Amino acid sequence: MANALKSRVRANYRFFLPYRLRWSDNDQYGHVNNSVYNFLIDSIVNSYLITHCGLVPNDPNPTKPIGLVVSSSCTYFSSISFPEVVDLGLRVNKLGNSSVTYEVGFFREGEDAVAAVGGFTHVFVCPEKRRPVGMVEEMRRGLEGVLVQEKAAL
Amino acid sequence: MANALKSRVRANYRFFLPYRLRWSDNDQYGHVNNSVYNFLIDSIVNSYLITHCGLVPNDPNPTKPIGLVVSSSCTYFSSISFPEVVDLGLRVNKLGNSSVTYEVGFFREGEDAVAAVGGFTHVFVCPEKRRPVGMVEEMRRGLEGVLVQEKAAL
Amino acid sequence: MANALKSRVRANYRFFLPYRLRWSDNDQYGHVNNSVYNFLIDSIVNSYLITHCGLVPNDPNPTKPIGLVVSSSCTYFSSISFPEVVDLGLRVNKLGNSSVTYEVGFFREGEDAVAAVGGFTHVFVCPEKRRPVGMVEEMRRGLEGVLVQEKAAL
Amino acid sequence: MANALKSRVRANYRFFLPYRLRWSDNDQYGHVNNSVYNFLIDSIVNSYLITHCGLVPNDPNPTKPIGLVVSSSCTYFSSISFPEVVDLGLRVNKLGNSSVTYEVGFFREGEDAVAAVGGFTHVFVCPEKRRPVGMVEEMRRGLEGVLVQEKAAL
Repeated sequence: MANALKSRVRANYRFFLPYRLRWSDNDQYGHVNNSVYNFLIDSIVNSYLITHCGLVPNDPNPTKPIGLVVSSSCTYFSSISFPEVVDLGLRVNKLGNSSVTYEVGFFREGEDAVAAVGGFTHVFVCPEKRRPVGMVEEMRRGLEGVLVQEKAAL
Repeated sequence: MANALKSRVRANYRFFLPYRLRWSDNDQYGHVNNSVYNFLIDSIVNSYLITHCGLVPNDPNPTKPIGLVVSSSCTYFSSISFPEVVDLGLRVNKLGNSSVTYEVGFFREGEDAVAAVGGFTHVFVCPEKRRPVGMVEEMRRGLEGVLVQEKAAL
Repeated sequence: MANALKSRVRANYRFFLPYRLRWSDNDQYGHVNNSVYNFLIDSIVNSYLITHCGLVPNDPNPTKPIGLVVSSSCTYFSSISFPEVVDLGLRVNKLGNSSVTYEVGFFREGEDAVAAVGGFTHVFVCPEKRRPVGMVEEMRRGLEGVLVQEKAAL
Repeated sequence: MANALKSRVRANYRFFLPYRLRWSDNDQYGHVNNSVYNFLIDSIVNSYLITHCGLVPNDPNPTKPIGLVVSSSCTYFSSISFPEVVDLGLRVNKLGNSSVTYEVGFFREGEDAVAAVGGFTHVFVCPEKRRPVGMVEEMRRGLEGVLVQEKAAL
């Protein structure tokens, strides 16, 4: 499995955003702390949900289903460091009735070999009772836009 | 697998530390952001390595092998929130020649049901060339102190 | 001014909480990154507001005035590092009709000399229009509980 | 003083970098947490020191003087939020023999009114004994490149 992920290249992803690393992202060993990758994965997913799937940003009173993270993971192949800018690539590996599994690849500028691959699974729940519900049509259409119909990797 | 993890209780872990949550740990939905769990897992592991396994903290020039994180994961069962204090429990699930897999459980104060279970795998490498090497004896003895010899969960 | 702050001791503060530092708090130089102090200051202030001043935690729909930070500062005297536990002390230096200025001291375990002193000013605003309003009585009484009526330091 | 800062526009700064905000930068109120500004200020300063002043990034064994932060501050005028990209502008307000005071302005994309102004003071110290020393010539020349010779604001 890790081998399959290690061979990922930019062409395996469908939506990209560049992120400028921050001084505090590096830990004592001079490389981006492994936990920071999860923050970046969260960021590109939520950015895509806002710009392409109808998620309302900064909504104190969500009426549409919200995504709860039920599991997350990341595999690290080579290190990245402040002050680099890294490109993140997003794809959806699984799209169910009320859940979705995202995969995100990390690429150093100008490189096509993946530095790390991570992702997580969202279960959509109603905002009050936090019970699973089917996602709304606008959300589904947006997620289908980055769905990759191959043997899922995460 | 998730079911096995979900039934974890405090007695399944060998070393505990309490962590006071911070205001910034909560995200817009009023619960601890899923990425923050990874920071806390990193913290209890490195604390244990320093206090029980001979890791020298804040060493700009490590001469002993250092642990590189090669993969990480977390599964979330119920939410935690600032301003709670959470207890983290640590165990080692696998102990190889040059690698170790940690599992960490998150418990709300006074509760025995686990709120989340995560962990990661360290590969020990020589500090200059970053190639895998066997861990030193003091490290191995320390890690054996929290090793749980059952069917590994992570 | 920095000299006055440098002479702070534990007895100058009115409310204390211990915070366990995290691995990611240290930056590349092996000491807590200066920005992390602000996160901790935010945390003890909001903890006090919740436990002593009636602030409702994790309230997606606040009806009472909320505090907006209008300015913040910190002065650093000596470094602290993961995996230490640090004690934070809180006091209020100025209490107006709709604003309050907090001061927070950082103490290493067992030490009475302050490692850093920081703080910020909250202006209370109505949650919808975000215009300044007088704070509610429960809030004022809580803040008076840690008010120090001397020549203000921040 | 706050009034002087509030009137800052892009033309008052000398070096710019865009930063993509992250999901975790927003706090429960749906705006970037005030402490996050300090992380961003740290990042543009260290980026400039690396690209224009000869600071060696990720150097476990610095031989040249390193900058210690002795005080920091920030004043907030209007809020910014994930998923925005913000432009940071950097200038130097004071340049001494062994110290430098930076000022950083935050601008929303396409806006010329400043959202926040912060900064900090670095004292350069020798890496072993951490005592103040004069900065090296390459550092001074780089800092002069963004020095603004007017009545300092921070």
